[in-house]
Amino acid sequence: PYYRSQLKPEDKAVGAVFDPVTVADRAGEEVMRALIGKRFPSHGVIGEEFGEERSDAEHVWVLDPIDGTRAFISGMPTWGILIGLLHQGTPALGVIDQPYLRERFWGDGMSAHAMGFRGDRILQTRREKTLDEAMVWVSSTFTTDPARQAVAEALRPHVRMLRYGSDCLAMAMLAEGHIDIVLETGLEIYDIAATVPVVTGAGGVISGLDGSPAIHSSSLLATGAPRLHRHVLSMLTKAA
Amino acid sequence: PYYRSQLKPEDKAVGAVFDPVTVADRAGEEVMRALIGKRFPSHGVIGEEFGEERSDAEHVWVLDPIDGTRAFISGMPTWGILIGLLHQGTPALGVIDQPYLRERFWGDGMSAHAMGFRGDRILQTRREKTLDEAMVWVSSTFTTDPARQAVAEALRPHVRMLRYGSDCLAMAMLAEGHIDIVLETGLEIYDIAATVPVVTGAGGVISGLDGSPAIHSSSLLATGAPRLHRHVLSMLTKAA
Repeated sequence: PYYRSQLKPEDKAVGAVFDPVTVADRAGEEVMRALIGKRFPSHGVIGEEFGEERSDAEHVWVLDPIDGTRAFISGMPTWGILIGLLHQGTPALGVIDQPYLRERFWGDGMSAHAMGFRGDRILQTRREKTLDEAMVWVSSTFTTDPARQAVAEALRPHVRMLRYGSDCLAMAMLAEGHIDIVLETGLEIYDIAATVPVVTGAGGVISGLDGSPAIHSSSLLATGAPRLHRHVLSMLTKAA
Repeated sequence: PYYRSQLKPEDKAVGAVFDPVTVADRAGEEVMRALIGKRFPSHGVIGEEFGEERSDAEHVWVLDPIDGTRAFISGMPTWGILIGLLHQGTPALGVIDQPYLRERFWGDGMSAHAMGFRGDRILQTRREKTLDEAMVWVSSTFTTDPARQAVAEALRPHVRMLRYGSDCLAMAMLAEGHIDIVLETGLEIYDIAATVPVVTGAGGVISGLDGSPAIHSSSLLATGAPRLHRHVLSMLTKAA
């Protein structure tokens, strides 16, 4: 309900600081924590807003109630709700939910699925694309540091399209086979845990930008085609 | 129907070149031209796909069946259908339509409106925002040329947020008062004509990046607050 909401004049009058994204973030995480606590009281939870709870449990839920807060506060429907489940520290289940589009993408590392007003469908990445055919989405965060941006720009001459402005919806579009490469940076565990089983379940490969396991990283390289992952990884390493 | 469509294996087998965005662009423009020709046979038309027809008429429709083709082919719902009407060469009516979101934004320079599943509403920009409060969206095109990007980056230290990845939906979000500044470049008349009456009708100001009339420009600076437009314009001129 807070998406595309406006600060009302009466809120201004009393000098209240109304931050719709913070309100929505907290409200969403509270609801999710309550549901998890009721159904799975022994499970741990890591959330963006309310920290860690039993994070050494066998099963730990990793929650980002609003991933892509800049898009959210801008009214652009590319943000999402991220729900990940770690089993013994490994991403086992992930959900990318976009309530405004009424679309939900999920995976368990072996398969991935979507539901929406177009019906349910199985997600499959484009596993045969070559680098010169690849469509690349890069998070806008790369532009905040010229050295970091240069790493992403190293790809541009070799690919079909490179565009900034990625959000978690781009990961879902990679899983569904519309785009081929996604680069993200400046991430926390709750930005990552949910996307890993969706991408791998759809046939893609995901890691940190340096090739390290995604879940222990603060950046992401996801590719639809497995061989593209190795190729791009070596290009990024050279550029860095 | 071509949005998020996939190349089917049988299309590949016969070696056919299936470009969903081209098919969708042409089909959309054909439908619009036929409707305009039937209802307003004396009006002119300028369209991205099929060129100019009676472009010296008193009334000329300016059509971009898919604005934001990179988003379109990527499955990201930030593209739109742009329909502008020029009266004696001046933008008189504009529509930004996003069929996947089922949202339509339109204006006539004096007022602006939106309709969608949340109901009809009047669009108003945030006319009181100051530069340090401003949320800025910049088209990804700026990143293809370091000098051009430097112009946009001149704003970053002075604003609340600057993000790349703008599409025509960002113009609608400016008109609705969610964001404050939009920068676009590399445009044609059919990328511009429809957005002008929406932005001005909602209370905003729009011009080329050099301050020239938007409709004769190949770039855009739109601001929700009128005084922000003068301020930003002088900053961009200095940076260029």
